[in-house]
Amino acid sequence: MSILIGNAVVGQSGGPTSAINATLSGVIKGAKELKASGTINTLYGMLNGIEGFLEERLIDLLGFFDSEDKLSILEQTPASALGSCRKKMPSLESEDVIYEKLLAIFKKYNIRYFFYIGGNDSMDTVSKIGRYTEKCGYEMRVIGVPKTIDNDLMITDHTPGFGSAAKYIATTTQEILRDCSVYTLKAVTIIEIMGRDAGWLAASAAIGRKVCGYEPDFVYLPERDFDMDKFLSDVRSALDRHPNVVIAISEGIHFADGSYVGSALQNGAVDVFGHKYLAGGGKALEGIIKEKLGCKVRSIELNLCQRCAAHIASKTDIDESVAVGKAAANAAAQGESRVMMTIDRTPKETYEVSIGTVCVDEIANQTKLVPDNFINEEGNGVTDECVDYLLPLIQGEISTIYKDGLPVHVII
Amino acid sequence: MSILIGNAVVGQSGGPTSAINATLSGVIKGAKELKASGTINTLYGMLNGIEGFLEERLIDLLGFFDSEDKLSILEQTPASALGSCRKKMPSLESEDVIYEKLLAIFKKYNIRYFFYIGGNDSMDTVSKIGRYTEKCGYEMRVIGVPKTIDNDLMITDHTPGFGSAAKYIATTTQEILRDCSVYTLKAVTIIEIMGRDAGWLAASAAIGRKVCGYEPDFVYLPERDFDMDKFLSDVRSALDRHPNVVIAISEGIHFADGSYVGSALQNGAVDVFGHKYLAGGGKALEGIIKEKLGCKVRSIELNLCQRCAAHIASKTDIDESVAVGKAAANAAAQGESRVMMTIDRTPKETYEVSIGTVCVDEIANQTKLVPDNFINEEGNGVTDECVDYLLPLIQGEISTIYKDGLPVHVII
Repeated sequence: MSILIGNAVVGQSGGPTSAINATLSGVIKGAKELKASGTINTLYGMLNGIEGFLEERLIDLLGFFDSEDKLSILEQTPASALGSCRKKMPSLESEDVIYEKLLAIFKKYNIRYFFYIGGNDSMDTVSKIGRYTEKCGYEMRVIGVPKTIDNDLMITDHTPGFGSAAKYIATTTQEILRDCSVYTLKAVTIIEIMGRDAGWLAASAAIGRKVCGYEPDFVYLPERDFDMDKFLSDVRSALDRHPNVVIAISEGIHFADGSYVGSALQNGAVDVFGHKYLAGGGKALEGIIKEKLGCKVRSIELNLCQRCAAHIASKTDIDESVAVGKAAANAAAQGESRVMMTIDRTPKETYEVSIGTVCVDEIANQTKLVPDNFINEEGNGVTDECVDYLLPLIQGEISTIYKDGLPVHVII
Repeated sequence: MSILIGNAVVGQSGGPTSAINATLSGVIKGAKELKASGTINTLYGMLNGIEGFLEERLIDLLGFFDSEDKLSILEQTPASALGSCRKKMPSLESEDVIYEKLLAIFKKYNIRYFFYIGGNDSMDTVSKIGRYTEKCGYEMRVIGVPKTIDNDLMITDHTPGFGSAAKYIATTTQEILRDCSVYTLKAVTIIEIMGRDAGWLAASAAIGRKVCGYEPDFVYLPERDFDMDKFLSDVRSALDRHPNVVIAISEGIHFADGSYVGSALQNGAVDVFGHKYLAGGGKALEGIIKEKLGCKVRSIELNLCQRCAAHIASKTDIDESVAVGKAAANAAAQGESRVMMTIDRTPKETYEVSIGTVCVDEIANQTKLVPDNFINEEGNGVTDECVDYLLPLIQGEISTIYKDGLPVHVII
């Protein structure tokens, strides 16, 4: 393999997470080694993903992050420090001018290493850019680096960003369980958790089972059709056992006909990828419980905090996110291209992972659902196997640096 | 002063906070000293406040918390470990049998020290029980220990529990500001914060101003009538300056006629104290901005996490909460009764407090609002004086003890 010499560029895309900047830090650390070995001259950061790249909005990341201390702060900063975008790339067959434009910019800046940190839709971008540059004979190593709190990417055991979201959800669920237990009055509390198609995040509400023995009475995932009669019967039976019933639901729960439980409250808006904006499953169920069961009921939407509560990040997740970013730089230097980095769990008693790669075309536009053996028979909770899978991902706490009582963040 | 010998009892009442158990720990620590000196035989904990006391649901707290380690865990446990209630005591003039019943239980257990940790409504209970037992000539020292995330108690500089809620809100606001800044699309994010009558919690969203320079564009408090035209003009002008507008509102914001901004979504339910259940100001404004300004808009209700996110508690708040509980035991031993403990801020450059007492009758059923000099002229933000008042209260982080990735809690 010949050494490919030139510059590198990295971008962040899709929804933010608490760990996406840790991955960026890893790419920067890897790029510093590539610069030291003479492989690259610098690593550019594209502002607002591929959209900003098309406008040549680039910054010199090796100059900006010139100390380990700055990188430590970057690793504890939530959301995409470089900004993000939600641009859907046209098909290659469309022969859209956007690809020519991209190629011209790659040439102008002598970009030979392209890193894109994102989820499903971003891997689609990586796949298309990789195939286009290959077709044109422009030598550039194109690497997708996974990130999504949703944990719904194929092949990788889990995704960077998920562990921190899971830790936030598991911790917050325990705090809400304590809060809801103080009164003797019958009451139902519904925690609405992110997850459009996959129920990984909602499942994380149950992690406490194997830590302290406390968890919500029920967890409803989008992997099972939602049955209102069964739900009301579940809640009734729980209220017979104890006064404070706590339920976790995924925002994506839907009836057998595919319509969302919260759809009565939806406005029908869709994002550029055609995903429906979801919210309101909790509010809808709140109204129904009030009407049918007549008890006090409250719904709590965990909302954005699930992806940005970096102060309670999982150390395991942050460490892995940095490692994945660094491994991406190494893999590119080794000649890999059109791959996505993966985290592979070693089949051992104790949790251990290695980092690998997979052809990015196998990843794009697919969704990894919670498997059948992780969901209980009644479809209203998760199995011990599921908790065993989740528990290692929330281990460890980061030593957050605070200034005057608030966590310190990098702002570019 | 003669030494009053007997037993002590402590209860928790009203809504939970992240620090109410730290105060309980302080009372236990103080009671251990009283036991050592022979003043009391034990400290009972009443389960579910005065309601549980009436059913003689008592536990021996000195036996349960027999180590410093257990008390440390208690101090990091959110919500009322003893359970709570929302019982409104009848007026003394009603000559309700409840008072005779209470007196009989006091006598049965030889209760001579009565500690009640709570907010405004709980101080009403303390005042009534204190006056009743005095009237009957039953010697018992009755002490109110303040707690409320709302910070709306009179005379005390601030209330235990507020600092931790403020730190959660200030931290979460910064994380949301980072999250909202990633896209270039015009968007408005509304953070709805607790506070029925007083805007202290919403004001805390602005603390970042003096730490990192970032804060929401506007903060709307219930101390000012809400004007929809002015609000829309504020938001329009902010959107002209930058794409990502973030607004903090108190749940209690209302129009000049007193009707709540979220009232279109209210169900009119009231709690036993006649307070309206509030929610929905953010959702109401979300709909109006969507309609009038046509941009992307999202509302986030911080909800219960404001009072139970103990993992991000303020060390200043937790330390003061313990100290106030301990001081309550000492004050009772010194002969004080029918008082509420206060935190008094020393008028110095650097933050310093002492703990005092005030006649509880001066506290009950009053609300301390955010003063005029803490609110800006336009009524859409807070002044530097306000931030200077708030900033010391969120200082310091507790060393949370974790087990298997989750904070450890005491469950009684």
